[in-house]
Amino acid sequence: MASRTPSPTADRAERTAAPDRGAAGERPRRRLSVDERREQLIAVALELFSRRPPEEVSIDDIAAAAGASRPLVYHYFPGKQALYEASLRRAGRELSARFEEPMEGPLSERLYRVMGRYLDFVQSHGPGFAALLRGGSVAASAGTSAVIDEVRRAAHDQILAHLAIPAPSPGLRLTVRAWIANAEITSLEWLAERSVPLEELQLHLVQEFVASLTLTAAREPALAAELASFFADERPDGPTGRLVQDLAGLFAVPGILDAVTALAAGPQTVGPADEASAQATEGTAGAPAE
Amino acid sequence: MASRTPSPTADRAERTAAPDRGAAGERPRRRLSVDERREQLIAVALELFSRRPPEEVSIDDIAAAAGASRPLVYHYFPGKQALYEASLRRAGRELSARFEEPMEGPLSERLYRVMGRYLDFVQSHGPGFAALLRGGSVAASAGTSAVIDEVRRAAHDQILAHLAIPAPSPGLRLTVRAWIANAEITSLEWLAERSVPLEELQLHLVQEFVASLTLTAAREPALAAELASFFADERPDGPTGRLVQDLAGLFAVPGILDAVTALAAGPQTVGPADEASAQATEGTAGAPAE
Repeated sequence: MASRTPSPTADRAERTAAPDRGAAGERPRRRLSVDERREQLIAVALELFSRRPPEEVSIDDIAAAAGASRPLVYHYFPGKQALYEASLRRAGRELSARFEEPMEGPLSERLYRVMGRYLDFVQSHGPGFAALLRGGSVAASAGTSAVIDEVRRAAHDQILAHLAIPAPSPGLRLTVRAWIANAEITSLEWLAERSVPLEELQLHLVQEFVASLTLTAAREPALAAELASFFADERPDGPTGRLVQDLAGLFAVPGILDAVTALAAGPQTVGPADEASAQATEGTAGAPAE
Repeated sequence: MASRTPSPTADRAERTAAPDRGAAGERPRRRLSVDERREQLIAVALELFSRRPPEEVSIDDIAAAAGASRPLVYHYFPGKQALYEASLRRAGRELSARFEEPMEGPLSERLYRVMGRYLDFVQSHGPGFAALLRGGSVAASAGTSAVIDEVRRAAHDQILAHLAIPAPSPGLRLTVRAWIANAEITSLEWLAERSVPLEELQLHLVQEFVASLTLTAAREPALAAELASFFADERPDGPTGRLVQDLAGLFAVPGILDAVTALAAGPQTVGPADEASAQATEGTAGAPAE
């Protein structure tokens, strides 16, 4: 672990190294306190590690960008891995803070705003951390895994808090975790290819959450009642409204309504096929029996 | 890398070590060829690495289980990491082979069969490799990442081959990749908690694929036409049929049909609300205009 109480040696190292550092021109005028210096080094490292994979960032790069000497950096951090992990922890805290959202308004609109902040973070910090999230980074360690797990847990807990369901079932928790994985992988793929506009991705991820939640509710009666009040709060021009309209539009595509109607009828072997189909149309599309 | 052409030294090591190995009692009667011995060591290592994390499996464990001496194992593999990676490659090939499925019958039933074989594999090999897939394994390396990427690519290519869509859009590819991540994370979570029966998970994952495909088709007109022929081939008692029936059942839950109907109407500000709602019901649930 990094030393949190540097001895006067650090200051000596800083003074000694000062002449080598003239070119940087970024040296703060005021002497930084121990904590300030530590935080500054982490901030500078995070900035560099966000843009490039860890193997392409050296302690010298960090020292130069911080206007500090190499010995000073080593005084605060035993090595590059420690600085990498500290900057990842900082990134994790910043990202988790972006998940916080007031408990107001339609659920899908709340999630839409969170995803906007999340994707903005991915865009600015993702390039350097992509390899780590994909599992192919040389800098992966128990420490980095713990940070990633922590962020995933924060996302999971925030979503469940907004859903406000007293005792979330294992199936619902699984749905939430799987959607978080979906958001992660989709945004990493996006970062590599940028094949769709970011706003589209933001909308799609939210709509996929709504769809997953609906699927889970379709097999969990207790959740279905919650889904009704969730849908009741949604607005036509919000992500859920637009999803419903897009899906309704699918029924205008030749063949889809007929096929879905036949499937909704279930495996019926009695009665003529036409009658079964007509019943299914009533059952799924007409008013429910009161 | 492991030596592929062991010198006679290997045989000497094997003979020399023989007395220490008496207790194992598993030594094959027939002398194994170089290739056979190598394959046998990989098979034994895969068996051990499937059950326990790599840090809990030693070269001695592998030698004992293979009825071989420690020097013999080291003759074929420079160390535990090389054996771990070789057994992971074997596991990757076995898993990829399970993705292969005849191009016959409803798509969701094909995927259901594949997921049965996949989940069977997860159950038998998952415990040891879970940490690797979660990104928190000490044995993670460029080599292990390459194997995992290869398996993901095989899954992606198989799905696209079955969908048989001439030029898959970036959006569709993203949907497929995201669903693969969903299947991975969901099965790993399942392995840790086993909170639902495996058959349920198998069905849910397939249904989530159908839902994701439908969502993607809702925003991509070219895919919507393909979706029609995909639905036309599905059967009422297959995963898609059961999904449609479950979703239709949701409309019987008080409030859901009304809320969805209002959302489907879109952001309409003219005309009385009742009329707009009535129109939406016709448009989305009635017969499409011919």
